Amino acid sequence: MKVRVAINGFGTIGKRVADAVAKQPDLELVGVTKTRPNFEGRRASEKGYRLFVAGEGKPSDFEAVGLRISGTVEELLGQVDVVVDASPDQVGRENRKLYERFGIPAVFQGGEKADVAEASFNALGNYLACRGKRSLRVVSCNTTGLARAASVLLGRWGIDHWEVTLVRRAADPAESKKGPLNGIVPTFQLPSHHGPDVRTIYPDLTIATTAVVVPTTLMHVHVNHVRLRHAPRDAEEVIAAFRASPRFHVFAPWERVEGTPQVMEYARDRGIGFNDMMENVIWHDGLRLDGRDLYFFQAIHQESIVVPENIDAIRAMLDLAPNGPASVAITDRALGLGVP
Amino acid sequence: MKVRVAINGFGTIGKRVADAVAKQPDLELVGVTKTRPNFEGRRASEKGYRLFVAGEGKPSDFEAVGLRISGTVEELLGQVDVVVDASPDQVGRENRKLYERFGIPAVFQGGEKADVAEASFNALGNYLACRGKRSLRVVSCNTTGLARAASVLLGRWGIDHWEVTLVRRAADPAESKKGPLNGIVPTFQLPSHHGPDVRTIYPDLTIATTAVVVPTTLMHVHVNHVRLRHAPRDAEEVIAAFRASPRFHVFAPWERVEGTPQVMEYARDRGIGFNDMMENVIWHDGLRLDGRDLYFFQAIHQESIVVPENIDAIRAMLDLAPNGPASVAITDRALGLGVP
Amino acid sequence: MKVRVAINGFGTIGKRVADAVAKQPDLELVGVTKTRPNFEGRRASEKGYRLFVAGEGKPSDFEAVGLRISGTVEELLGQVDVVVDASPDQVGRENRKLYERFGIPAVFQGGEKADVAEASFNALGNYLACRGKRSLRVVSCNTTGLARAASVLLGRWGIDHWEVTLVRRAADPAESKKGPLNGIVPTFQLPSHHGPDVRTIYPDLTIATTAVVVPTTLMHVHVNHVRLRHAPRDAEEVIAAFRASPRFHVFAPWERVEGTPQVMEYARDRGIGFNDMMENVIWHDGLRLDGRDLYFFQAIHQESIVVPENIDAIRAMLDLAPNGPASVAITDRALGLGVP
Amino acid sequence: MKVRVAINGFGTIGKRVADAVAKQPDLELVGVTKTRPNFEGRRASEKGYRLFVAGEGKPSDFEAVGLRISGTVEELLGQVDVVVDASPDQVGRENRKLYERFGIPAVFQGGEKADVAEASFNALGNYLACRGKRSLRVVSCNTTGLARAASVLLGRWGIDHWEVTLVRRAADPAESKKGPLNGIVPTFQLPSHHGPDVRTIYPDLTIATTAVVVPTTLMHVHVNHVRLRHAPRDAEEVIAAFRASPRFHVFAPWERVEGTPQVMEYARDRGIGFNDMMENVIWHDGLRLDGRDLYFFQAIHQESIVVPENIDAIRAMLDLAPNGPASVAITDRALGLGVP
Repeated sequence: MKVRVAINGFGTIGKRVADAVAKQPDLELVGVTKTRPNFEGRRASEKGYRLFVAGEGKPSDFEAVGLRISGTVEELLGQVDVVVDASPDQVGRENRKLYERFGIPAVFQGGEKADVAEASFNALGNYLACRGKRSLRVVSCNTTGLARAASVLLGRWGIDHWEVTLVRRAADPAESKKGPLNGIVPTFQLPSHHGPDVRTIYPDLTIATTAVVVPTTLMHVHVNHVRLRHAPRDAEEVIAAFRASPRFHVFAPWERVEGTPQVMEYARDRGIGFNDMMENVIWHDGLRLDGRDLYFFQAIHQESIVVPENIDAIRAMLDLAPNGPASVAITDRALGLGVP
Repeated sequence: MKVRVAINGFGTIGKRVADAVAKQPDLELVGVTKTRPNFEGRRASEKGYRLFVAGEGKPSDFEAVGLRISGTVEELLGQVDVVVDASPDQVGRENRKLYERFGIPAVFQGGEKADVAEASFNALGNYLACRGKRSLRVVSCNTTGLARAASVLLGRWGIDHWEVTLVRRAADPAESKKGPLNGIVPTFQLPSHHGPDVRTIYPDLTIATTAVVVPTTLMHVHVNHVRLRHAPRDAEEVIAAFRASPRFHVFAPWERVEGTPQVMEYARDRGIGFNDMMENVIWHDGLRLDGRDLYFFQAIHQESIVVPENIDAIRAMLDLAPNGPASVAITDRALGLGVP
Repeated sequence: MKVRVAINGFGTIGKRVADAVAKQPDLELVGVTKTRPNFEGRRASEKGYRLFVAGEGKPSDFEAVGLRISGTVEELLGQVDVVVDASPDQVGRENRKLYERFGIPAVFQGGEKADVAEASFNALGNYLACRGKRSLRVVSCNTTGLARAASVLLGRWGIDHWEVTLVRRAADPAESKKGPLNGIVPTFQLPSHHGPDVRTIYPDLTIATTAVVVPTTLMHVHVNHVRLRHAPRDAEEVIAAFRASPRFHVFAPWERVEGTPQVMEYARDRGIGFNDMMENVIWHDGLRLDGRDLYFFQAIHQESIVVPENIDAIRAMLDLAPNGPASVAITDRALGLGVP
Repeated sequence: MKVRVAINGFGTIGKRVADAVAKQPDLELVGVTKTRPNFEGRRASEKGYRLFVAGEGKPSDFEAVGLRISGTVEELLGQVDVVVDASPDQVGRENRKLYERFGIPAVFQGGEKADVAEASFNALGNYLACRGKRSLRVVSCNTTGLARAASVLLGRWGIDHWEVTLVRRAADPAESKKGPLNGIVPTFQLPSHHGPDVRTIYPDLTIATTAVVVPTTLMHVHVNHVRLRHAPRDAEEVIAAFRASPRFHVFAPWERVEGTPQVMEYARDRGIGFNDMMENVIWHDGLRLDGRDLYFFQAIHQESIVVPENIDAIRAMLDLAPNGPASVAITDRALGLGVP
């Protein structure tokens, strides 16, 4: 019997996790919630997802525009084994009591503080440690990207220390009210909060992060310098390690992918849903090894990179897979990652 | 037996038309051409499309990176009944002789001048007049959008005159070398060439167009003022006409689609391939009728709007459907347009 | 003896009007107000402008960072003959009572509704009708640009009707929180409010305006089609009329000014302060006449175009000049406009 | 008697250096060159600068539009003691022979390779070593910014090693043909060329630089991590050192300067010409010290930062000042730098 899943919040993350749940062999999407009708609610309905009303939402607002409502969020929670909270930042924390009242395990997003859940989660990083928890927090898009890279480097060569500049996209593509239109805004928190957040997954990692915000909607780019503990044989060995890892996509020079515009174009060409790029993106040309010093760029699709992690978090909590790699394999096959 | 189709050029338009051909019940995609390998060639290969080398391209460049080449463009042309030329502007004109040499009918794109083909084509506009031609030119994205709107308005109320300001996107999403980054560039050609281009479809239309280029990659927006010959009953009647026409998508106010960022987000949610929006986009809130004066905005997805037109152009040339609406219905069903 | 002027609000408009007042032969800048310290307050101080605290501001906040405060806004108002209100939208309306209490005439900005003042004002449009008023509202940047163009066309050829598409900049250069970053947002109010606003200056004008917002910070661009009552001899006659009018700047083709980026570069080269372009910008190449139909683009620098109008509004209220042209001549000479 | 200076090339850099030369007490601007007329040539003429024709330019093209030409570049070179080459990248190298033929010392820009001149130059870095040279190359904007920061840190605390991520603006404000419009493009050269370029000034410096290009026209931002040799007492001591150095501008937190949009707004408010910001910009809030580890952001105005360096390079070559600080003091006083 499949595990019954509710998605509370059907925005950028929620709609993606809903689709991802619906594709999994061992999960069943019972319903999703919205507070007010919009084009995303229309798509939920067109896809046959049952809609429930959350927050201050009124069923009549939905019905007036022809969207059928199956009940309240409470009614949805009564029908499921687990909930993924994809509500806006800080609302997840408020929802926690509700989930506790229903006695169902919950996955939270990285916009919440770490103490919203029993543990922070990354599939390649700490799956086993998260088994059986009653609540997990999938770390944010940038942190997920860093944790994945750590998972590849730590086991093979060790990390002495790591410096990252995060060049952050200012808004998601569908947000039309955020700026800056023309300019660079440094994040004055030095180092930025991303380093400590990675340590919720790898507590002993020495990592210092800084961030700037730039006028693009497409992807974040991480500029990495890692001092490894042991020197890889050569850059090709590192590239090969990234290629061999799930949730990494390496572009070869001949593919002529100059930057994030072409990465997203590839994603559109691939077409796994929403034009998503759920993997860390590495450029073969954008990696250099100098002894134990590794320099590389990685691009992070802020909208989708945590989607498979949410699926794996469910499996970890409910112990549906023996370990991280097993869960990742199921998730990625269902999502079309790593295939051809 | 299916009609065998070649796509010469596998860039923004060619890759979309290839997918569209592959989905049609009466067409067969025989192969596509490229001049040099890149990520799009990789996707062609992953999709199982046979790759042929065009122009100055060398098979060895492809084979060196693992992309199998099935021959030259000439070898491809020898195997097909019709070719769609999706090569860069002006190259299509040069290719014409090649197609004539092979004696196969050809569809050209709107980046070529009108005399590249026997006639200019728009499915809702002049399908019947194009039947049996040996070459057709699908008019450009903006002209296609205008011709479609004309097809809705002309038959019902007549058009006395029409003024359009085209607010043009400066580059496609994957082009990273075009600007302006911050500014507006007026097109000094007054009126712009778009009006005369629409008259290649509707020769008697009175239309004056002006254009500006703005820093966005997503869509063009047309600001229309049409003086109709007869007054519609009310704005709702006009909205209903657009809703009833194929290749129009009308957003209702409750969908909260403010501008092109949300239109493209809807397109990603819909997911018909490449995040495309092949229909003219109309906003219910963005249309006003004042007697015979109709004001409305329409958004045009520059990358995909001509894709179904290319399919219909093939059918018109080879007389595969009795009329435009019949071809449009086949095309759109296969592409998933108009089907929620 | 000079007329003593207060500027209430020292942001984008206020700081410019302050400088403009300080340059006039018949006006004296007594002081400016701010609610909290920032880099603009620092510049006010460095320029020797006396700072007064407005709104909820606390003198101690300024003194803590070394900015000397000369008193409250009330103390400033007690020392002046006239006040220019350059506070944020809607705050001007609240301030009105304060100015009435002090019995001093006041100039308001176009962000307020028309009834904030006895009349709306444009120097080339209705100076004489505004003489002796106790309060005036300088119309907004876009309306000012349209009113100026009307002043040139109406007297010479008459205007039968006028259609304008306003392509609006999304934010000022120093605003880093507004979008859209990538997209076009149509203004669903059809026609937009700009037409009625122009009629606060020219009540009998037939004008229909529509607007879209685009991702740039530099200037608005108006796409105009005017049906004149009488046909000019040729386009050159119209260009000559714009050239002959104050507050118009016409770029010749050889100057290679393609769009708003180069207009602003010219403004930086000219250097009249803040890189401002207080004139309507016309491109010789961007104007076409077809009988009585005039098509032209004009660019409007949203930050500065109303600055000279504020000066003239003061003169109109206090009857400091015999007529509009006389006031305009004094203002423009002092500001360095029209002087190569 | 003043030193007579020619500026060969009157674009972004040339027009600024021309103004800067004209303001110096010991220099005389004899003339500037252009190859074809545009709005910048018009401004040169309006400012009273004598125009000479360079390259393939024809005097008749200038005279046809009313710009008076005083001769050819050769005729200009015959009248001067020194030339500043501000022609496009790589053209400077070709011009070198011309300058040698006239036997006049020449200043080149950082777009040329280092071997274009006898030495690379930075006023705070290696003024004395450049005295009496016959040719100097002012290093590029980014390199100048790094060299200045090195000059402050090296003498006081020493630099063990330095890592910089350069977040580069994609185009200058008046360039309307460069992208990307929406995206981040990493520079695959790892480390980037900026580090070696800084070592043309400080040969022993250990510095590794990486770069990304982002869609803004305003300024570059450097994200710095410097491991100093000796620990400063605290962050305030480092801030104080930057404040005490010429060519640094430190924004205090209360000034509310969040990013480059507000920095450029300050520059417009200051109004030293072209809205320039010739100093390295440091944010008090954007600097953190952790033992010997110094993290700080600095913003670099790509259009103007090298302008004062060009002036000092002239003085170094012709030995017009006893040392760097003396030259810098003259230059900056004349330019209005460091004077509130």
